[in-house]
Amino acid sequence: MKILLVGATGTLGSAVHQELVERKHDVVTVSRTGGDLQFDVTDPAQVAELYQTVGQVDAVASAAGHVPFKPLRDLTVEDYQAGVTGKVLSQVVLVREGLAHVTESFTLITGVLAREPIVTGAAASLVNGAVEAFVRAAAIEIAPQRINAVSPTVFTEALDVYGDYFPGMKPVPLAEVVRAYVRSIEGRQTGQVYVP
Amino acid sequence: MKILLVGATGTLGSAVHQELVERKHDVVTVSRTGGDLQFDVTDPAQVAELYQTVGQVDAVASAAGHVPFKPLRDLTVEDYQAGVTGKVLSQVVLVREGLAHVTESFTLITGVLAREPIVTGAAASLVNGAVEAFVRAAAIEIAPQRINAVSPTVFTEALDVYGDYFPGMKPVPLAEVVRAYVRSIEGRQTGQVYVP
Repeated sequence: MKILLVGATGTLGSAVHQELVERKHDVVTVSRTGGDLQFDVTDPAQVAELYQTVGQVDAVASAAGHVPFKPLRDLTVEDYQAGVTGKVLSQVVLVREGLAHVTESFTLITGVLAREPIVTGAAASLVNGAVEAFVRAAAIEIAPQRINAVSPTVFTEALDVYGDYFPGMKPVPLAEVVRAYVRSIEGRQTGQVYVP
Repeated sequence: MKILLVGATGTLGSAVHQELVERKHDVVTVSRTGGDLQFDVTDPAQVAELYQTVGQVDAVASAAGHVPFKPLRDLTVEDYQAGVTGKVLSQVVLVREGLAHVTESFTLITGVLAREPIVTGAAASLVNGAVEAFVRAAAIEIAPQRINAVSPTVFTEALDVYGDYFPGMKPVPLAEVVRAYVRSIEGRQTGQVYVP
């Protein structure tokens, strides 16, 4: 399959990229500053331009999204809006603009904070909850195109940096998260939130 | 208790108002154009002004939130943003600005579309999913202040208008939704999403 991978240079995106290439897919990588194509997907005009540039693809996989982490009392309305712009609307626009260019499926990134909160994570929870509910809703209107979300907890490989924010929460190996992308892309389900 | 009721003039807000008054609470009603106080809570500056005007209260209950309903292919990024501004950020700011003015609890409104999608409801799903995840996250940072959400499906009393959008979905009597507000306000739980 020809797969457009957005956010391809991060920890997760790089791992997804490697696995998709090993599985013989033709992967076009996008990120703000690296990858095959440089576009900022938080700008709807750039998303439209991205699809014009890349043409028809079989699947879109997103591993991109930025949300501010701060104690709740310090989170401003601008912080919540930054999360909405950086991880919700960016991915919604990838779907919206992609409807005319994507044959099979969209796979979006969300995260455990949609279900299980952590201190400093209120904006991230809000944003992830929005993405997961959107995926369930979009699925019933875009068929036969499919859409799923991958919703991991903290990566085992990132425990040294982020572990203190997830006390007592079981981490997930990056390889399991990558497997959920493969399931979404090569499987046939839609409207699912995969929790690897 | 002294309770600030936002969105007090709608179908739900009026019913919540009536029950809270019957339960001997001192209710201050707010809405854009009616109620005891007129404020537009989608404007953060007006929310701050609202709390300055009303002073200290025991609880805030929100029954206010507007989201566009359209087929997914017609929903623009501006429509999603309007929903985020009209039902997510408005309620987040009620909590944020209320932390210094509210003694006991916040009760926010969300809805079944967070979990179960309907056609034309993608923006509403996104918005409701965001509010529910925010409530779970805020609860762990604002204790001993409490926060819950009430997440009803279509009202039995509104079936003649909205029933066609919810085929085969069981409606809920308004009185049961009102009961969930009472549970949130007079009970002691926090971080809950009550599904009446």
